[in-house]
Amino acid sequence: MEIQVIGVQGLPLIRKGDDLPALICDRVTFEDGDILTIASSVYSKAKGFTRDLATITPSADAVRIAAKTKEDPRFVQAVLDSSSDILLEHPFILSEVPSGHIGVRAGVDHSNIEDGRIIILPPDPMGAAAEIRDAIQRITKKDVRVIITDTCGRSFRRGQTGIAIGWAGMTAINDYRGDTDLFGHVLEITEEAVVDEIAAFANFLMGESHQGVPAVVFRNCRVWNGHDAVYFTPEEDIVRAALKKSKKD
Amino acid sequence: MEIQVIGVQGLPLIRKGDDLPALICDRVTFEDGDILTIASSVYSKAKGFTRDLATITPSADAVRIAAKTKEDPRFVQAVLDSSSDILLEHPFILSEVPSGHIGVRAGVDHSNIEDGRIIILPPDPMGAAAEIRDAIQRITKKDVRVIITDTCGRSFRRGQTGIAIGWAGMTAINDYRGDTDLFGHVLEITEEAVVDEIAAFANFLMGESHQGVPAVVFRNCRVWNGHDAVYFTPEEDIVRAALKKSKKD
Repeated sequence: MEIQVIGVQGLPLIRKGDDLPALICDRVTFEDGDILTIASSVYSKAKGFTRDLATITPSADAVRIAAKTKEDPRFVQAVLDSSSDILLEHPFILSEVPSGHIGVRAGVDHSNIEDGRIIILPPDPMGAAAEIRDAIQRITKKDVRVIITDTCGRSFRRGQTGIAIGWAGMTAINDYRGDTDLFGHVLEITEEAVVDEIAAFANFLMGESHQGVPAVVFRNCRVWNGHDAVYFTPEEDIVRAALKKSKKD
Repeated sequence: MEIQVIGVQGLPLIRKGDDLPALICDRVTFEDGDILTIASSVYSKAKGFTRDLATITPSADAVRIAAKTKEDPRFVQAVLDSSSDILLEHPFILSEVPSGHIGVRAGVDHSNIEDGRIIILPPDPMGAAAEIRDAIQRITKKDVRVIITDTCGRSFRRGQTGIAIGWAGMTAINDYRGDTDLFGHVLEITEEAVVDEIAAFANFLMGESHQGVPAVVFRNCRVWNGHDAVYFTPEEDIVRAALKKSKKD
């Protein structure tokens, strides 16, 4: 069992209007079953999901939060605009975005873009993954699975890791419930968040700095069955409840 | 840039006293710089870090918590014995172990072991990684990096992923602070938890069921610089504080 993980080299700086699937297909000979991971930042740049700080007027809420987080109130306004629920206001904004993902600063980023501009997350990341998958199928006739990744902090541990915000051609979670272990016991609670495990290692190849590659191909990965319910409901989410409660106190 | 990720096939069921590094070296031709990931469960089994439930007498605390989590009070006692701080008692025990890792049920597991026995995490996972690294160097004369992995749930997202609990020959976190992005901006806050990104994808190959492979080799990975401070101090840890506060209420 060997998997090849290949960074897509030589992509130009992506600009609004660029045909990202075509640019990637020029540089990769895809095989059926490949998993293509793409950084959400380059998808957003190609699609124009960026904003000019100069055009943003901060609300009173943004000014109030910015005073606590010591950030540009216009940047904070962009975070609020991208958020459907605020879990924490400081020392950093932690919020839910409409797709269900909960992350720091709603994934709004001022790295790897010109001064004065910011990148926002794709508003429909599942649709984005399906769109890339369809485009690659049209260009190459190959059946490629796609994951849109972002980097995000996590509880209890320092540092960011890659996570999946959108996927197509696969389920997010490999559901082992009902399968048996080495000793024949039925596994009762095991659900493996496979898309996040792949996105994490994709991020290791992507890197964060100027050496980065924004797309990574995984070849020879197994197929799995499961479901897409990767986001807790608010009622199920113990940490979210504790944070919202502590925000009110 | 291509990385090969190789599952170590054909390992026997590991029992107490087995020479795990020798068994792995029989099945892998290592190269300098390889990263070997090993599931903590097989390391624990080789070293005898398992317990017999019949020998455990639950305390009043264990009986009280077990009534809420609907688990065997002896299992709960084993979780308490492995924990240095309890963050949450139910619907599942979330606790810190002495190494600093915070996880569900302190990593105590009754899967992939005989009925009536449980596997506990290696008490010194950093030492475990160093020991495996040294043994492989003695056997093969190759400079191999080692990560001990566990599976663990996370906040805000359903499903478990692989994480690193011990590592040797590398730092946990790639510290990009001071590096520049594609537009020359200095990156101020970016720290990438590289060992966890590698452990996550290792877990994808390991699987959870009877098809599992407990060791995975990563070949041709880049080297990075950083630090090992992967665990927040209690003062820095916002989620921990909110959970402990909500536990008291």
